[in-house]
Amino acid sequence: MPDVRAILFDTFGTVVDWRASLIEELTAFGSARGIAADWTGLVDAWRGAYAPSMERVRKGELPWTILDDLHRASLERLVVEFGIAGLIAAELDHLNRGWHRLRPWPDAVPGLTRLKARAIIAPLSNGNVSLLVNLAKYAGLPWDMVCATELFGHYKPDPETYLGAARLLGLAPSQVMMAAAHNGDLHAARSCGLKTAFIPRPTEYGPHQDRDFAPDSDWTVIAADIEDLATKMGA
Amino acid sequence: MPDVRAILFDTFGTVVDWRASLIEELTAFGSARGIAADWTGLVDAWRGAYAPSMERVRKGELPWTILDDLHRASLERLVVEFGIAGLIAAELDHLNRGWHRLRPWPDAVPGLTRLKARAIIAPLSNGNVSLLVNLAKYAGLPWDMVCATELFGHYKPDPETYLGAARLLGLAPSQVMMAAAHNGDLHAARSCGLKTAFIPRPTEYGPHQDRDFAPDSDWTVIAADIEDLATKMGA
Repeated sequence: MPDVRAILFDTFGTVVDWRASLIEELTAFGSARGIAADWTGLVDAWRGAYAPSMERVRKGELPWTILDDLHRASLERLVVEFGIAGLIAAELDHLNRGWHRLRPWPDAVPGLTRLKARAIIAPLSNGNVSLLVNLAKYAGLPWDMVCATELFGHYKPDPETYLGAARLLGLAPSQVMMAAAHNGDLHAARSCGLKTAFIPRPTEYGPHQDRDFAPDSDWTVIAADIEDLATKMGA
Repeated sequence: MPDVRAILFDTFGTVVDWRASLIEELTAFGSARGIAADWTGLVDAWRGAYAPSMERVRKGELPWTILDDLHRASLERLVVEFGIAGLIAAELDHLNRGWHRLRPWPDAVPGLTRLKARAIIAPLSNGNVSLLVNLAKYAGLPWDMVCATELFGHYKPDPETYLGAARLLGLAPSQVMMAAAHNGDLHAARSCGLKTAFIPRPTEYGPHQDRDFAPDSDWTVIAADIEDLATKMGA
């Protein structure tokens, strides 16, 4: 049972099922608005734009831009690509804030609630603070604090994010664990001295999932889900 | 009933009774350690050093320094002044972290719990992030997020703190309310466009209290305590 004082959670995919949530939300919107379109394809393309848009910030091609604004710019481009016309700004805003209304995986709230009694729990997510705060209220995520990479002006996997979170918590990196469904996140966290927990989410990307079905290294803990992580952490 | 999306709480004095908590903690420490001293006087002098130490940061005489470190420097000076000798570094650390273990006023947790169903609730405190996170776990404060002025590299009442909190929450200042037992905090918040709530804590400073017995302006809400604030906010 590793001795950690804080557990940081990747959020999109690890804690919440962004894909099913957004497909449901956009499909319902299209139905209510009478717009037939490939809403599922749009959601997948929207998530596909996520890493490249942050990469432009990480490389300095864009100044610091919060994820809500990256999402919004991608959405404006994608509605055109998917032949969706006539949406007004308020509708685009509403759809963009769909990222603030994502459902947790069934094990997330019970697992986090148990872990909260054992350690500080917080997201360490590329979502901006307001997205993560609204999401926590929507999904009932019992965070002790909200740690967005926005606070550091860097996106994961930049080391400033993992080290910044430990610094804000007043902890050594070795007292902090990063929990994620993505091996890449854990490699970056471990290189900063954090402990690591892998939680597979093999349906995160639906039929398009092509990685992260299994741990690719000897992470500190490998758990089936967040409830199992709580058990393995003695919570 | 003012329409606000988030309520920010001053913490020391407004939410927690720092004075009684620290007097009890330091007196118990002195008793266990066999050190007779004016522990109550030390607590009052320690709090007396709070504003001047932050003022040195606000004026640029010191680089950005978190409150734990300001507290620690004041404590090292004060133990000498109060004739307390022989404390080792680990004991000074323990006493300094007494600021992470303060008791809430009796109305705080029930009032905040009610307000949490109505709005985003967060501290906006000069305590650093780790202090506020540890304090929230110790005292059971059900914050949605932890907003420390450390995030902005400025201490209250600098406008960067109030405006920075609204920005992180993705809200206009007018959608945010500052709640405090200190009129000065509310004057600064209002000048940034925030709504305001005054909650008197007439025993905060014990026999040394010389201000803030009553509101000195027409704040948005004037409440007897945090439970009364919840009632007045329709929570």
